[in-house]
Amino acid sequence: MSKIITISREFGSGGREIGKRLSDQLGIGYFDSEIIKQISEKTGLSEQYIESIYEKGPSSYPISFGRTFYSNLPLQNNQTEVFVAQQKIIKEITKNGDCIIVGRGADIILKQYNPMKLFIYANMQAKIERCYEKAHENENLTQKEMEKKIVGIDKNRKKYYSLLSNQIWGDKNNYQLCINTSDIEIKDIIPSLSDYIESWFRRNI
Amino acid sequence: MSKIITISREFGSGGREIGKRLSDQLGIGYFDSEIIKQISEKTGLSEQYIESIYEKGPSSYPISFGRTFYSNLPLQNNQTEVFVAQQKIIKEITKNGDCIIVGRGADIILKQYNPMKLFIYANMQAKIERCYEKAHENENLTQKEMEKKIVGIDKNRKKYYSLLSNQIWGDKNNYQLCINTSDIEIKDIIPSLSDYIESWFRRNI
Repeated sequence: MSKIITISREFGSGGREIGKRLSDQLGIGYFDSEIIKQISEKTGLSEQYIESIYEKGPSSYPISFGRTFYSNLPLQNNQTEVFVAQQKIIKEITKNGDCIIVGRGADIILKQYNPMKLFIYANMQAKIERCYEKAHENENLTQKEMEKKIVGIDKNRKKYYSLLSNQIWGDKNNYQLCINTSDIEIKDIIPSLSDYIESWFRRNI
Repeated sequence: MSKIITISREFGSGGREIGKRLSDQLGIGYFDSEIIKQISEKTGLSEQYIESIYEKGPSSYPISFGRTFYSNLPLQNNQTEVFVAQQKIIKEITKNGDCIIVGRGADIILKQYNPMKLFIYANMQAKIERCYEKAHENENLTQKEMEKKIVGIDKNRKKYYSLLSNQIWGDKNNYQLCINTSDIEIKDIIPSLSDYIESWFRRNI
């Protein structure tokens, strides 16, 4: 059986960085925006639009796309199409062997493969600081706006997760390890975290 | 500053074993039943009685001791005495340098010293199995009774914690790392966990 690591994460907590660094350390493929690209190819929908479904939430109206090409299509169908394609793609990824998948409910979608499930979180101040570090040049949000953005995105991640499962997103009982990144430098914990993951797989594969 | 590690844990999740093994691996003193012994010396109350306060909860009546010597003392005072002594002892322990303290709200009591805070948990089946392994010979509980015992003890730990803080016991946001022991052999994770803790202290001390 393959080693499958799923990383669920609060927005701004560094889950993506952990995924990338673990990928380098363990020599395992990492999938994140790659999934969006593949969904786009499969559905013909733009990557930007697909990303917006996650960020704006599965049932909310995607205002910025309201008057584009997609406004002619029933919104619900678009979303369903994306979610179905995503589940298929995530399962396909695992066929090629070991992998690290960030977000998108992969822990639920891949439940039958018994993945090692991580949840990455941090306090609000740390998340805001991380978001500022990673912000695009044209993104000039105040602290309050940034906090609102973080809370909003996580609310939608929770909502999306609840479509896949009756488990609660972020409930520690759904994960093997929950890592608080508020007061760490991510690169410092990668060697020990990789060793922890390896020891988990020695018993669970 | 000293390295202080606090371990909060669900009953039956192996928190005590993690504490002992980390103590060996890191060469740091480990305090658990030692605290009970010291409270007993300070207050003159029996170790068994002190333990019962934790297990039966801070506000419930300790039936098994209802007709002993202590029944002449106001119960609430006894409990307060224990909690006050405990806080003092836990703070005194830290004066001697690095330490690992299991349970007893040490993460709250020692907040000002910025401890590395772990929370250890597991699913019910794993906890029941661990409890059977560790059970005393004369303890013949059915699965159902064991589950009831586990749920009851954790309920009281939560209650005790709420006396010390307005934080919620077991809420991952209060801890740096939450470890699910359902599908691991504790000894296997000790080397990587120790390394993780060391890397955390390199940044937070």
